[in-house]
Amino acid sequence: MSVSALPALRQELVRQGLDGFIVPRADEHLGEYVPAAAERLAWLTGFTGSAGLAVVLASAAAVFTDGRYVLQLAEQTDPALWQRLHLTEQPPPAWLAAHAPKGGRIGYDPLLISQEGLGRYTDAGLTMVAVERNPIDAVWADRPAAPIAPAVPHPLAYAGRTSEEKRGDVAKLLREAKQDAAVLTDPASIAWLLNIRGGDVPFTPFALGFALVHADGATDVFMHPAKLPPATRAWLGNAVSVADRATLAPALAKLVGKTVRVDAAGSPVWFAQQLEKAGAVVASASDPCLLPKARKNPTEQQGARQAHLRDAVAVCRFLHWLSVEAPSGRQTEISAAAALLGFRHEAEGFRGESFPAISGAGEHGAIIHYRVTPESNRPIRPNEVYLIDSGAQYPDGTTDITRTVWTGPGDAPDELRDRVTRVMQGHIAIATAVFPKGVGGAHLDAFARRALWQVGLDYDHGTGHGVGSYLSVHEGPVSLSRLARPVAIDAGMILSNEPGFYLPEQYGIRLENLLLVQPADLPAAGKPFLAFETLTLAPFDRRLLHPALMTEQELDWVNAYHARVLRTVGPALGEAERTWLTAACAPLSSG
Amino acid sequence: MSVSALPALRQELVRQGLDGFIVPRADEHLGEYVPAAAERLAWLTGFTGSAGLAVVLASAAAVFTDGRYVLQLAEQTDPALWQRLHLTEQPPPAWLAAHAPKGGRIGYDPLLISQEGLGRYTDAGLTMVAVERNPIDAVWADRPAAPIAPAVPHPLAYAGRTSEEKRGDVAKLLREAKQDAAVLTDPASIAWLLNIRGGDVPFTPFALGFALVHADGATDVFMHPAKLPPATRAWLGNAVSVADRATLAPALAKLVGKTVRVDAAGSPVWFAQQLEKAGAVVASASDPCLLPKARKNPTEQQGARQAHLRDAVAVCRFLHWLSVEAPSGRQTEISAAAALLGFRHEAEGFRGESFPAISGAGEHGAIIHYRVTPESNRPIRPNEVYLIDSGAQYPDGTTDITRTVWTGPGDAPDELRDRVTRVMQGHIAIATAVFPKGVGGAHLDAFARRALWQVGLDYDHGTGHGVGSYLSVHEGPVSLSRLARPVAIDAGMILSNEPGFYLPEQYGIRLENLLLVQPADLPAAGKPFLAFETLTLAPFDRRLLHPALMTEQELDWVNAYHARVLRTVGPALGEAERTWLTAACAPLSSG
Repeated sequence: MSVSALPALRQELVRQGLDGFIVPRADEHLGEYVPAAAERLAWLTGFTGSAGLAVVLASAAAVFTDGRYVLQLAEQTDPALWQRLHLTEQPPPAWLAAHAPKGGRIGYDPLLISQEGLGRYTDAGLTMVAVERNPIDAVWADRPAAPIAPAVPHPLAYAGRTSEEKRGDVAKLLREAKQDAAVLTDPASIAWLLNIRGGDVPFTPFALGFALVHADGATDVFMHPAKLPPATRAWLGNAVSVADRATLAPALAKLVGKTVRVDAAGSPVWFAQQLEKAGAVVASASDPCLLPKARKNPTEQQGARQAHLRDAVAVCRFLHWLSVEAPSGRQTEISAAAALLGFRHEAEGFRGESFPAISGAGEHGAIIHYRVTPESNRPIRPNEVYLIDSGAQYPDGTTDITRTVWTGPGDAPDELRDRVTRVMQGHIAIATAVFPKGVGGAHLDAFARRALWQVGLDYDHGTGHGVGSYLSVHEGPVSLSRLARPVAIDAGMILSNEPGFYLPEQYGIRLENLLLVQPADLPAAGKPFLAFETLTLAPFDRRLLHPALMTEQELDWVNAYHARVLRTVGPALGEAERTWLTAACAPLSSG
Repeated sequence: MSVSALPALRQELVRQGLDGFIVPRADEHLGEYVPAAAERLAWLTGFTGSAGLAVVLASAAAVFTDGRYVLQLAEQTDPALWQRLHLTEQPPPAWLAAHAPKGGRIGYDPLLISQEGLGRYTDAGLTMVAVERNPIDAVWADRPAAPIAPAVPHPLAYAGRTSEEKRGDVAKLLREAKQDAAVLTDPASIAWLLNIRGGDVPFTPFALGFALVHADGATDVFMHPAKLPPATRAWLGNAVSVADRATLAPALAKLVGKTVRVDAAGSPVWFAQQLEKAGAVVASASDPCLLPKARKNPTEQQGARQAHLRDAVAVCRFLHWLSVEAPSGRQTEISAAAALLGFRHEAEGFRGESFPAISGAGEHGAIIHYRVTPESNRPIRPNEVYLIDSGAQYPDGTTDITRTVWTGPGDAPDELRDRVTRVMQGHIAIATAVFPKGVGGAHLDAFARRALWQVGLDYDHGTGHGVGSYLSVHEGPVSLSRLARPVAIDAGMILSNEPGFYLPEQYGIRLENLLLVQPADLPAAGKPFLAFETLTLAPFDRRLLHPALMTEQELDWVNAYHARVLRTVGPALGEAERTWLTAACAPLSSG
């Protein structure tokens, strides 16, 4: 943050004839991780959280975030300059309606907000003005360059289908919907469609860019040429044209009279605006790659199993290490996360973490999106709860696992075991669910909460999210959540199963495996049914479970799962590790 | 049906300059039961089902219904005149778009379709023209008169709150929403708000009419004066004005400049059209009585318990009677339903059935909305499944119960008992659910299906619907269903719990009790939780349950429920009945 940033921006707003401006924490792809060049919110306000937005008026300014980042927002921003507010409790459009001059021109960068997002401002009666050039970029002197990491082929041995086949599938979808082309703004869709992977943002192998898919399967990619070296160009083939990002607007302008599909929720509103200006017909519909990408093909499914097995070896080695180290009190949240990362570096094909690990001891575990810093770091102490949520990228699959561990050497308290057991029961209820095709994540979510609800407990996050195949660890369109979009769960999708329970200032519990949706083989079924295959392989901490509270079926599930972990992971471990795993996977009984 | 109806309608359409016309099965209140004067669809087509719509063009005509009535539609309509189609598989707007002349003027009666319903036609690109007078009424020579059953006071001992208090509550809602008035078109809302009950339609004590509630609580009722005799007028008080239905349009025209709330889904589009023409601002929002009516007050809750107890005596007497008669084979679907009705007539305060009883033996039980007729009637035979779904109206409450009975004298087959047990497990999972406030019916529905889903079975209807207090047995806005509206379940609501299973051409299973939503008393809860109190009191057929398949908790629930039935209903029965009930309520054990 520059101390002169806000005054400089205000001067630029005057120059552009604007009474205000909104600064979302977003890049042109509206994604979760953004490159340094798009960290305009951090530059302007100092706030570095992953969800936020600033609103600047001539004589007032506010910065908003959600419950995860309220404390961080207060620490990182200057109260003399900024009102610090809650995104949903005091939504920015309402704040603007109350504070902006009547009829004032509020600027927005149409590349950084979706049509749906913009609608919340216009619905509030605000006069929203699209800027030609982002006024922050005009005054941000030392703005980093856009990333230009080279994209590489994603081989067929991992992708399972050629880009030509995928483009044919998407083109068929477009023809059936009577659309001439679709705009792709999600780098995950482009990576999937073209079978390439890049390195422009942390944690996800994206090559940032845009694409136009035509109804004949021909595809135009708009990306800095440096990102596509000759080998990658050759891999893309002749039906894929490549042009610089700067040629995107003229290319859209040529679509006069065409019907072009744009995702009103996921794409910047700039695209619909450009297309309408050009005389194209905008068809508002979801990104056509979303569903085929979410339904992993057999090669991707087999890759996921293999990646999970290799990841499981690293995780089990770490859990063994932790069982030795934790009771001593000499490790910290940072050193434990580093140890896990070290084990993963030894796994074949490891390409990096799929998100920043959440390593929370004791009361830090109760902070759902805790991210340890040198300032917050604390020892992992004996006889407490330690929660670690982490994941990895491999070329054959993306992993995400949370385990909650009792550090010992003493026994865990009864109430804690009751809570962990209820979370485990929720996890099992999802893992063993069988359901007809057509059911969505909003309909299954309560299975994971029932045992907690019975005693008045709950957790304040969804039960699961979609996961990509060597792509984003948070992948749409399906999730397990009351707020899930009304999209049916389907075979081949990968979802996390991560119920939890959090006692503020005491501890956090979360038990997470990834699940692969499979057709259920049920002779009686007169329609297609689905079930889950658990991909993740690592023991749950037996010391935190209370077998007497569990049904026979629940105990059977845990015991069968642990037997599978031991059978599949055990042979890849050293002797001490295997001895530990054997004990960690010993059967539980209610007797 | 008159054979000349269709040609006469077509002549009238020519006279009115229309190329087509849509004829929904609806009255001006868009309700479930319509008076004879509004049975235009039946007059035109011969089809008497409760869901349907006809579309008439100059040289083609089609009549649509849903899966429940496909056979009935085929029997009752003339294939030479009508294409017979499925409402959702071939939606009327799509059929019209394919068959109507390009740009043709398609008439509709704006009093018989909601704004949302009309939107489906305009979205299909059709030119929809509101008629001034329904062309069917112009040619329906012997159209019955509108009903004018007198409305009577609904005493405070049943209503629990005065109309003045209720009007004050609704007025406050309107002021908070900055609305000057609300249009009420649902007779249930008017009956609830004014504490009156009428007799204009079968099964629900409605006095058909309309109302305008103003933001100061003053209310204008538009209803044939004959329906409001002096005692009822006096009961309404001075803040309620009464005028004839014919004065409704002029009254709306006076609302120039006012903001008037109209339910776009539940009210005829005519209201929004009239208000816009008058220069009023239409605020689209749900009927403001819906939620307060759904949340029964303590008096209504206590009334529901008492009504259910009296109804339970009739149902248990019937079940005893059935246990004697069924094995003999001398009773029929009609005679059994009549016997139940006879027992109910002996219940204090019985005012009639709350819907036509579904009395289905054997394969008829698999027809979810089966309605026995003299033609379909068949004996109830020994050793088969008999399903009876029925309900009653009492001044203190509305009931709805389904029991599935094995007629004996032999034992029920194992597979059948497996299916009934799974339905019972679903019923128990709902009855025992505890959940935080904010959860909707879409999130709980899967609890009822889990045991069936595990073996690839399901049922093709919702799990439960709201129930009124001496009002409609199907009451919004909450339901237990994947398709439930996103409205939170709240304390005081009454919902049915009726999972089922249907083996076509063999048998039907449905186990239905009504539930009252109650605050859950959970010390650990940091936020409000809710739970269900079961209102309905009658045994489930033990011979159809398979205790070895049930958990201890499930057996405990059945045994505790049966003990409660015996304790509460037993004392009101005769000796033979009580002896039977004692055996029917004997504990189950898995051993």
